[in-house]
Amino acid sequence: MSRIITIGRQFGSGGREIGRQLAAQLGIAYYDKEIVTEIAKRTDLAEEYIRHVEERQPQPVIPLSIGRSFSLSVDPLIDQQQSVFIEQSNVIREMAAKSDCVIVGRCADYILREEKPLRLFFYADLASRIERCRRVGELGTDLSDKEMGKKITAIDKSRSQYYRYYTEQEWGDKSNYDLMINTTNIPVKDAVEAIIKVLQ
Amino acid sequence: MSRIITIGRQFGSGGREIGRQLAAQLGIAYYDKEIVTEIAKRTDLAEEYIRHVEERQPQPVIPLSIGRSFSLSVDPLIDQQQSVFIEQSNVIREMAAKSDCVIVGRCADYILREEKPLRLFFYADLASRIERCRRVGELGTDLSDKEMGKKITAIDKSRSQYYRYYTEQEWGDKSNYDLMINTTNIPVKDAVEAIIKVLQ
Repeated sequence: MSRIITIGRQFGSGGREIGRQLAAQLGIAYYDKEIVTEIAKRTDLAEEYIRHVEERQPQPVIPLSIGRSFSLSVDPLIDQQQSVFIEQSNVIREMAAKSDCVIVGRCADYILREEKPLRLFFYADLASRIERCRRVGELGTDLSDKEMGKKITAIDKSRSQYYRYYTEQEWGDKSNYDLMINTTNIPVKDAVEAIIKVLQ
Repeated sequence: MSRIITIGRQFGSGGREIGRQLAAQLGIAYYDKEIVTEIAKRTDLAEEYIRHVEERQPQPVIPLSIGRSFSLSVDPLIDQQQSVFIEQSNVIREMAAKSDCVIVGRCADYILREEKPLRLFFYADLASRIERCRRVGELGTDLSDKEMGKKITAIDKSRSQYYRYYTEQEWGDKSNYDLMINTTNIPVKDAVEAIIKVLQ
């Protein structure tokens, strides 16, 4: 099994934490926000802008029914969003070619499909994701459970649309992953150990 | 984590083999066809008949649109199929109460939901399932790949309908499982070791 590991994750499921611990225990590279920094270096775009457009489906100004190929040539915003994706794909491919690594999100499972990475997906029920967000201080401290739930669902919807747009596959659909772990009942430590067993 | 383990599996994904090895390594009971034998003992039904109706959705003779509750009282076949399910649920509950165990299929994840079992699901791409069926001699030796693929898909459709009928949940939907393993690239031995890590 390849030691290139890609991570898809529902927001608040702890996938990033598992990825970090996995990379540390295996002694391999971990790439998450580092990818944004690298794209910013290579383009004239600010990190903040890249963070804003990444893992979001390009939003056309013209009606979608006109079709993607036409919109490409008339909407400079979409052009830019797609060029961020292309640059990101290059960065991810270079990172994976350099050494074994864990890559979080960003359609890495699809971009690296020819390298046969170990494709992981993490998920959990909404209550447990709200609880985790609260515990780690994600999304702030002033939201009610209901508001937090709405935000989590919206972020996942956005990730799902982004993934579908660039891969034409379904985000979180089991056929696109090798191992899917529900972190509602499985703690981070156990998940990491299980994944290491699969890699051996 | 409970040491009651339930297994859902696409036909040909090797889920049963993983379950068997898991039970052997953990030194716990393994229940699959044993459940049929036990139901036959408790009812006046033949094992062959039970095998025929289990993991299949009850087939009403009257139109479905009349509704399930009405069909219950007029179709003795459906009554019998449902009483097999009820007896099966009793057997499964008793088996789980007696000792730690691995239970294959039969909505055990749902029937035992209050015991919080470790709910596993195994799947694989169709080509790899055809290859496995051929290797272990399942479905006979005289079918073409296409015919075998059709048979596998039909068995899974039947399992899916059965699961939905009795649980009102989606078979193979990640929210109903703790761990989902794609056996296309993950060998039985590694899957077993990974699951044991989650149980510790």
